[in-house]
Amino acid sequence: METTEESVDQIKTRVVGIDIRLEKTTYGIVDIRGDIVAQDYFDTAEYPDVNDFVTALAEKVLVLIEENGGHESIRSIGISAPSASSVTGCIENAANLPWKGVIPLAAMFRDRVGMAVALANDAHITALAEKAYGSAHGMKDFVVVSISHGGLGSCFYSNGMPHLGNEGFAGEVGHTCVNIDGRQCGCGNRGCLETYCSKKGLLTTVQELLEESDEPSLLSEMRELDILPIAKCCDKGDKLAIEAFRRTGSMLGVGLANYASILNPEAIILTGDMTMAGKWLMKPMRQAFKEHVFPNIRHSTRILVSILKEGERDVLGASALAWDVKEYSLFK
Amino acid sequence: METTEESVDQIKTRVVGIDIRLEKTTYGIVDIRGDIVAQDYFDTAEYPDVNDFVTALAEKVLVLIEENGGHESIRSIGISAPSASSVTGCIENAANLPWKGVIPLAAMFRDRVGMAVALANDAHITALAEKAYGSAHGMKDFVVVSISHGGLGSCFYSNGMPHLGNEGFAGEVGHTCVNIDGRQCGCGNRGCLETYCSKKGLLTTVQELLEESDEPSLLSEMRELDILPIAKCCDKGDKLAIEAFRRTGSMLGVGLANYASILNPEAIILTGDMTMAGKWLMKPMRQAFKEHVFPNIRHSTRILVSILKEGERDVLGASALAWDVKEYSLFK
Repeated sequence: METTEESVDQIKTRVVGIDIRLEKTTYGIVDIRGDIVAQDYFDTAEYPDVNDFVTALAEKVLVLIEENGGHESIRSIGISAPSASSVTGCIENAANLPWKGVIPLAAMFRDRVGMAVALANDAHITALAEKAYGSAHGMKDFVVVSISHGGLGSCFYSNGMPHLGNEGFAGEVGHTCVNIDGRQCGCGNRGCLETYCSKKGLLTTVQELLEESDEPSLLSEMRELDILPIAKCCDKGDKLAIEAFRRTGSMLGVGLANYASILNPEAIILTGDMTMAGKWLMKPMRQAFKEHVFPNIRHSTRILVSILKEGERDVLGASALAWDVKEYSLFK
Repeated sequence: METTEESVDQIKTRVVGIDIRLEKTTYGIVDIRGDIVAQDYFDTAEYPDVNDFVTALAEKVLVLIEENGGHESIRSIGISAPSASSVTGCIENAANLPWKGVIPLAAMFRDRVGMAVALANDAHITALAEKAYGSAHGMKDFVVVSISHGGLGSCFYSNGMPHLGNEGFAGEVGHTCVNIDGRQCGCGNRGCLETYCSKKGLLTTVQELLEESDEPSLLSEMRELDILPIAKCCDKGDKLAIEAFRRTGSMLGVGLANYASILNPEAIILTGDMTMAGKWLMKPMRQAFKEHVFPNIRHSTRILVSILKEGERDVLGASALAWDVKEYSLFK
């Protein structure tokens, strides 16, 4: 017997995922299988006033929805943003966005689109993307660490749920100490992991090596130092470039070992620009990890690099948040 | 209208908590309010064969039950032991017990007493005791760190549940690295927190100070160095004793700061012999903690010392496990 529209309720099979960051805002429609049906983006910086931003974003999202199946197919909306709290639905004093203060973004956006909206911060969303569609699929206890220009962000899952901490500040592995009297960090402390392992930390190490060594190096002739060009110098056998990644990877290995000794995760999944360095970073990282992690988990802890595409991860993560919207606040 | 025995079911209002450790095994009957109705103990070492141990323990527990309200009042039994897994119900290759290999203790004990039995390891039970009856009462995200002779044990709660990790090895903060090329640890790694902050680590620091310093010190005349006598030297103004605790506390502060930066706990609760050192350890610990923790949680993270009595904590924790017995495995 066939079911008709009258005999059963219709389920909404799509959600919207939105990723807000300083450079650009990306939004897409995602179906149950995690396929991105349609996606677009615009410059976040075009809207220095957050009210204008939310109005424009709502218009663009509604247009995309109308062009791709219409309002009736969309269940809910998930948003990823830096410094966002899934508890309050607000972006709170974001250092990496054009808008200052506390912004009730989830409520503002819900009022303009008339759908349930969930908000979470980017580190949390990155981990959710890995759990829903990436390397952490099927895992209950895992860590995702994102290593970018300025710092390290991370989020971990405990018993299948994200661990946000008492005030939502959990996962600050970039500010764990790996060298008590070490480099000055922007946070005011000394020896923080990210002073060594962010791209900025790598460039500091390169500068130190160029100053302390007489070894000729391709690095000394480079106009603008960046991760991939330095890795290419390694490919050519440049000793200083190799040593720069060796020092960076060693520190990273210690930081990840400490994280793992506390959590005993099934896997640590790495994302972010620094993973482009490949083996030049990963080999010394694994070596230091093995030397410093609690021996019982030395061989069982998997260290993986994200399999998600950089351009899809955050929209997919935000869409996964949208499916979970009842678990998170609807900010009614 | 009175209720009679016939008109309502009778609830069992007591459980048994058992704490097994190398020195002694303690067992007690505990009621709903956490009052220990009756308690006794015996030398664990009297039973080098684990079958004899379990038989004797069952007999003693059954006698205590008969003398205190009888079998009908007891709902279930919780057991705390080193190297115990709440997943398998086994004690697995315990370094700190007389019995080698994998011992299915929960099932063995259940077969002898005919009641539901839950088992968990001592670090987990210490945290459970703090949550049920101690400083962590009402908290969802907290850490309990036990600092004793040989090492540091810890357990943390995430979202109100104990985080055990992928293989049950979570909480090994004693083996997080605080000094990359530092002291050799028994685990094979270098610079582990417990090489500095266990009692053994403190005594190593005292020896180093006595060797490197010309400063006269009461410590040089002591026959047997221990935590309390060293703290008493501090009270008398002994500079080397004060410096020994300053170094120990500084390292502890860095280790706890790293733990807190990853977890953002509401509180870190300290237990174990080292807490007897009082302010001589705690002041430098707090100083280093503040200098190295993620700044956003510098002032909000509470560092507490356990309010539970040393002789009661583990029986109370094991009894709390017994109440939760449905949450844990019954090893049927």
